[in-house]
Amino acid sequence: MSDDSELLAANAAYYRAFANGDFAAMTRIWAEEGVSCVHPGWPALVGHDAILESYRGILHGMNRVRIAHRDDTAIVVGDEARVLCVEIVEGAALAATNCYRRIDGAWRMVHHQATPIALAAEERETPPRGQRLN
Amino acid sequence: MSDDSELLAANAAYYRAFANGDFAAMTRIWAEEGVSCVHPGWPALVGHDAILESYRGILHGMNRVRIAHRDDTAIVVGDEARVLCVEIVEGAALAATNCYRRIDGAWRMVHHQATPIALAAEERETPPRGQRLN
Repeated sequence: MSDDSELLAANAAYYRAFANGDFAAMTRIWAEEGVSCVHPGWPALVGHDAILESYRGILHGMNRVRIAHRDDTAIVVGDEARVLCVEIVEGAALAATNCYRRIDGAWRMVHHQATPIALAAEERETPPRGQRLN
Repeated sequence: MSDDSELLAANAAYYRAFANGDFAAMTRIWAEEGVSCVHPGWPALVGHDAILESYRGILHGMNRVRIAHRDDTAIVVGDEARVLCVEIVEGAALAATNCYRRIDGAWRMVHHQATPIALAAEERETPPRGQRLN
């Protein structure tokens, strides 16, 4: 696969892990070192343990999070990359940035941040859980 | 200077340019290639021209934006780096991530994203314009 398609596959795997509540997959997706995460409304989390602990809480909650992504845009510079996409979480839209580093040939997440944004009314339909929209 | 202090100086320069409405400085701060930006509530902007155009509008608005930053945390891996910090914009708190790439020895911004967060009441005082809090 080209750099972009491998990266977009890694990004899809992140949302699949999220939608499926798959904490083991989420653990493999995140890099070990130099990682940070800003969940909507939360203060920044720095470090692998703090980040994975947050996902444990989110993914093991009583209710699965209905999450989908679309409009993925890949930016690759050497072994560093970003994917910008729109997340639809429980019907609300967020502008998400997922930063990746290529480690031993695999794109591992090093930063995630999602910021609430407005969406036009016709775009607000809630998709089936985990569906990729683009 | 060490990597961290050069990076934190670059991050301070970004907020100084913002607070001073200095568009020329902002132009120098951003890298040319592989750049993206998520202003609070906006859809993601990709590409140098779209991003600088957004700053032109923000910085040349009728009213200067009262902005400060604190709690800067640097993450440096080779020639790629991130600074996580708290922005105080017009009295509201945001979790900001500024991603940098070292190009010809200088840290240039490649991604900016700010996400609204809650702050404890005692932390909400609006600082003087452009003051660095930490």
